[in-house]
Amino acid sequence: MESNMSNAIPLCERSSREKGMVCIFGTGDFGRALGGKMLQCGYNVVYGSRNPEHSNLVPKGAEVLSHQEAAQRSSVIFLAIHREHYAFLKELTDVLDGKVLVDVSNNLKLNQYPESNAEYAAQLVPGAEVVKAFNTVSAWALQSGTLDASRQVFVCGQDIKSKQMVMEIARTLGLTPLDQGSLMVANEVENYPLQLFPMWRIPMYISTALAVLIFLYCVIIEVIYNYVNAGEDATYSIMISIPNRVFPIVSLILLALVYLAGVIAAFIQLYKGSKYSRFPDWLDKWMLCRKQLGLVALAYAFLHVIYTLVIPIRYYVRWWMNNYVITQIKNNSTAPFDTSYAWRSDGYLAPGILGFFFYVLLGITSLPSVSNIVNWREFRFVQSKLGYLTLMLCTGHTLIYGWDRFIYGPYYRWHLPPAFVLSLIIPCTVLCLKLFLILPCVDRTIVHIRQGWERHPKIPVPSMCENGKTTV
Amino acid sequence: MESNMSNAIPLCERSSREKGMVCIFGTGDFGRALGGKMLQCGYNVVYGSRNPEHSNLVPKGAEVLSHQEAAQRSSVIFLAIHREHYAFLKELTDVLDGKVLVDVSNNLKLNQYPESNAEYAAQLVPGAEVVKAFNTVSAWALQSGTLDASRQVFVCGQDIKSKQMVMEIARTLGLTPLDQGSLMVANEVENYPLQLFPMWRIPMYISTALAVLIFLYCVIIEVIYNYVNAGEDATYSIMISIPNRVFPIVSLILLALVYLAGVIAAFIQLYKGSKYSRFPDWLDKWMLCRKQLGLVALAYAFLHVIYTLVIPIRYYVRWWMNNYVITQIKNNSTAPFDTSYAWRSDGYLAPGILGFFFYVLLGITSLPSVSNIVNWREFRFVQSKLGYLTLMLCTGHTLIYGWDRFIYGPYYRWHLPPAFVLSLIIPCTVLCLKLFLILPCVDRTIVHIRQGWERHPKIPVPSMCENGKTTV
Amino acid sequence: MESNMSNAIPLCERSSREKGMVCIFGTGDFGRALGGKMLQCGYNVVYGSRNPEHSNLVPKGAEVLSHQEAAQRSSVIFLAIHREHYAFLKELTDVLDGKVLVDVSNNLKLNQYPESNAEYAAQLVPGAEVVKAFNTVSAWALQSGTLDASRQVFVCGQDIKSKQMVMEIARTLGLTPLDQGSLMVANEVENYPLQLFPMWRIPMYISTALAVLIFLYCVIIEVIYNYVNAGEDATYSIMISIPNRVFPIVSLILLALVYLAGVIAAFIQLYKGSKYSRFPDWLDKWMLCRKQLGLVALAYAFLHVIYTLVIPIRYYVRWWMNNYVITQIKNNSTAPFDTSYAWRSDGYLAPGILGFFFYVLLGITSLPSVSNIVNWREFRFVQSKLGYLTLMLCTGHTLIYGWDRFIYGPYYRWHLPPAFVLSLIIPCTVLCLKLFLILPCVDRTIVHIRQGWERHPKIPVPSMCENGKTTV
Repeated sequence: MESNMSNAIPLCERSSREKGMVCIFGTGDFGRALGGKMLQCGYNVVYGSRNPEHSNLVPKGAEVLSHQEAAQRSSVIFLAIHREHYAFLKELTDVLDGKVLVDVSNNLKLNQYPESNAEYAAQLVPGAEVVKAFNTVSAWALQSGTLDASRQVFVCGQDIKSKQMVMEIARTLGLTPLDQGSLMVANEVENYPLQLFPMWRIPMYISTALAVLIFLYCVIIEVIYNYVNAGEDATYSIMISIPNRVFPIVSLILLALVYLAGVIAAFIQLYKGSKYSRFPDWLDKWMLCRKQLGLVALAYAFLHVIYTLVIPIRYYVRWWMNNYVITQIKNNSTAPFDTSYAWRSDGYLAPGILGFFFYVLLGITSLPSVSNIVNWREFRFVQSKLGYLTLMLCTGHTLIYGWDRFIYGPYYRWHLPPAFVLSLIIPCTVLCLKLFLILPCVDRTIVHIRQGWERHPKIPVPSMCENGKTTV
Repeated sequence: MESNMSNAIPLCERSSREKGMVCIFGTGDFGRALGGKMLQCGYNVVYGSRNPEHSNLVPKGAEVLSHQEAAQRSSVIFLAIHREHYAFLKELTDVLDGKVLVDVSNNLKLNQYPESNAEYAAQLVPGAEVVKAFNTVSAWALQSGTLDASRQVFVCGQDIKSKQMVMEIARTLGLTPLDQGSLMVANEVENYPLQLFPMWRIPMYISTALAVLIFLYCVIIEVIYNYVNAGEDATYSIMISIPNRVFPIVSLILLALVYLAGVIAAFIQLYKGSKYSRFPDWLDKWMLCRKQLGLVALAYAFLHVIYTLVIPIRYYVRWWMNNYVITQIKNNSTAPFDTSYAWRSDGYLAPGILGFFFYVLLGITSLPSVSNIVNWREFRFVQSKLGYLTLMLCTGHTLIYGWDRFIYGPYYRWHLPPAFVLSLIIPCTVLCLKLFLILPCVDRTIVHIRQGWERHPKIPVPSMCENGKTTV
Repeated sequence: MESNMSNAIPLCERSSREKGMVCIFGTGDFGRALGGKMLQCGYNVVYGSRNPEHSNLVPKGAEVLSHQEAAQRSSVIFLAIHREHYAFLKELTDVLDGKVLVDVSNNLKLNQYPESNAEYAAQLVPGAEVVKAFNTVSAWALQSGTLDASRQVFVCGQDIKSKQMVMEIARTLGLTPLDQGSLMVANEVENYPLQLFPMWRIPMYISTALAVLIFLYCVIIEVIYNYVNAGEDATYSIMISIPNRVFPIVSLILLALVYLAGVIAAFIQLYKGSKYSRFPDWLDKWMLCRKQLGLVALAYAFLHVIYTLVIPIRYYVRWWMNNYVITQIKNNSTAPFDTSYAWRSDGYLAPGILGFFFYVLLGITSLPSVSNIVNWREFRFVQSKLGYLTLMLCTGHTLIYGWDRFIYGPYYRWHLPPAFVLSLIIPCTVLCLKLFLILPCVDRTIVHIRQGWERHPKIPVPSMCENGKTTV
């Protein structure tokens, strides 16, 4: 339905029963786009302007009057004006009394003013019912009909009746109104269109920093070491070989960080013997961006998979393989089949593939439409049980990949351990701590704490008779 | 919007216009979490408790009174108490008369009681308007603000006004209320948080059983046979080689099972000459879990693809390839290029890849947000037409993979056919039956039957004038 | 929740409080399915029929009366009759006065009649409140309870109260009603179930035509050329080798076409110095199907990736590799490692992989549920910034793949350039034009124009005081 219908609506002819009159203050870009769309959908539109005689850019079929006159014509007034020019509303308190004043404005910066524009308007005209709406829709989207991202209209306001009027208008224009509650959240609604992935910022910073550090580390012990010690030019490996070391390491560390937050939280709760003491701020922030951390980890894992699968196509690998065969023949020595090596080779690939499979499963259940139809118990099953399984498989993948290289001298160039050794520190720590937490005695205490039990309650609560759903 | 906004709401200051008073019965974990969230969002909260003087664990700013006194203060009462303790409500019938009683309780087991908790409460206090809501939200989610899975609040109740009041509160708390209808569905709503993927259970059992059986079969004819007859140790193949036989076989059988259900249903309808006789129960269940069966099949196909793509990286394969070249050179015999073998090799890979591609397409259209914007005709086109195309491609992939191995003696170890031969039985059957069903004369009869035509109607219906949408 | 709950609802017993009486005109397939579902959910159902005495196929528990009598019993009448038979409604104007008449009908063709069926019914019975609804639900879905695609019920009508009554019924039946506005959109709602991916048609035609053309071109210069000049049989390459040339080329061209539309639009705006002049029709259509074009491009890229990854498994490639080694040994000449070739090989794979990664990211953000929670600024960031990054990476991938083959004579068979050379024309053009558009001076002008500024305005607008959100 989505795109098809809304794209077709602009062509709809006038209804026999008129939709009534709507007033728009402001003949700027957004005011004109909104008015044009409303005219298409059967409304009568009147503009209120400071210079009504100069405003003949408004859509065909709309009238332009003074603010005073225009407001008298309609019970719903859209305020498509910058906040700096709201002052004139004070002079209109009489005519706006009891009317629905829809604030559609946005600011240029997050939290630019102490109070939201809509609350400011409500202060200026206390008699009007101010509703915040339409600020997430762009003028261009209204004009062109391509409403992919901006179909949602967040509506908030004190008066339910007024909100319903505005939501009905939004629906008629082919948009999806969402009631967000009272005018208190107007600030949130106004900040919303200015945000650029706020929850993704920290995960992106962490993963980028990790990737750069590990990349440099690998360049040192692989490219520079080879150049200094053997005079070999291995610079070409910065294209694929080294990224393919960096990606899995970053992915594994990020995945471990996702679960480290929960483990730390559990230890804090264990230590304090209560769930009612607040976590430190950094832990709160960390816990709130776990989903994003996990998805960035998945992205790195995805890259690792493809970089690994192209290995046999690479010239470097093909040349090396050919050279290996030719050398064997020249020396007339054939390497016998080594079963333990076959076990090792298959043994590190299999958990890697299964780990990636569950990684993808976790990613799919993070899609809003999927996590929406899943209940809390199912969500926890996937994100916690399957998540730890993924972490175990990926850690196992790295451990078997390492095999005897952990103690094999030549891999410790300049006494530096190979990068994959470093990548195992956090995952192994997390898995050990988790192992401790699921010991029956420890687990029982945590479950009690999370059901509201406290080691040092101020006064004993008659907990038997209250509703303590088991959570987390 | 989702996470960002709700996470920000907890910090919102009090509104100038008060939201009014809300009463919560029960100072347990959930009651406290709910009250805390409500206080943050501008409500006044009063708790009703059996021991009001002992309950100072309630959130700051809330009062604690006796049940009687607390209920008098508010027109909405949340019942955050275990069902076993509902009896005291009887004494409050007077004070609760005409008030909205919100039942937030859950049980520990599915269908624990004959009637739902909400209906039980409605029987105890017939004068109150009982609304079931908030039971899908967890206390922890309310406190921490991480509401991924539990943002949806299912609301049901007899009285529309009361439901709307509760839905408005849910919205103010940053949740998404969904009206589910009358109190009759309260049982469903209460069972919902206790479910763990109920629709996935049968497909998971079937696929696991199939996978285990085929795995054992392959171990017998590959590992054990080799060990017994040649003394070779091929145990390493249980890591990748054998799973990579099991996965495609399970995937193909499951995919065929998806369409077998529909084929059987069509034959039953053909046989009975009517669509109004009920299908047997097992077929009904089977048809309802087709989507899940298909997605499990896709998961196995995904694993098969990755297991196949890592083939050239495996030590076993590399050693074998090298050995092949070395042997050729030692014998001074070069294998000429065999065009028919090139056709065969490419010819089984191509339909496999295309089949996987359509498999993924089917999976994507199964995502709730995608299938939601697709109409019934489009959904059927994808799931039926593209589905059969996928089944044909995958069956073709297996047939060409088999090629002359179907009749090649050495592959029949211990007189057992190779596993892939067994995998073809159901898909080929389904395709043949479907071929019969789309014969013009048969197809016409089925279309008639599905439009409501009956071979032996009790009385002739004037079918011309009624609205018989063509379905399925 | 989705499937589980609705599947369970059919079994619900009668509520103690009756839901009231619903009347259905028409005992055809859909009328019977709807009535059956309503009876299950606690409604009393009465059918209105021309031949009430002949209609004993109706669900158990429902009565059948004449139209007149049935309509008197209920305030909501469902009209489950083909439009051709609506005429009888005229005789019922009295009894239908003030009642809610729900039109559930569909047509057989798009825009079959000048006005929608619902509007036609409203003309016949001006006194009734006509509501269009339930036409997107199929009889089979109602009967079987599998409501994947058809859970949404689009509702439209003039009277809000009537719409709310119908929406409440839809909710009780376990469906999701969506208010679409007034009866003016009834035509859209009626066309909706007849559509088969209307927005995908043009992208599918373009991509199929491109794929066929390039396939033939490749067959000519690879298969036929080889056969004519060397007598070699390379026909097996039409399975994988040639498709794997066609897919990336089509994908790259389609991706470039996505961005070409926006570039042309910008040039038109620059030239006209205004954003208020309409684009030509073909450009409008093009811009509206960019998302679909991009997703088809992603599908081709996906196929290209898998076709590339199976390269080392193919018999042809393995034979060729073995032959290469054997030839080297026979000639006793070993090819030394060529660093520049290693750079080139890795250098074209890396941007290809990264390009595919961003391609997939673009695809994921196109999922309705993801694009819905993204604001306009974020959506533009992903689709524009990341989109151009993808285009650059994929173009770079092809350029480095080409390397010296652009000027290498033997690749120009029959004086025809290799196919990949042709594929670069549009992408390079788009990137050059875009480079011009983001020159600071040009960019500034475009931003002005898109904020509503005009080079030749009819009358100067006091733009300072109006709300011109920056868009596009």
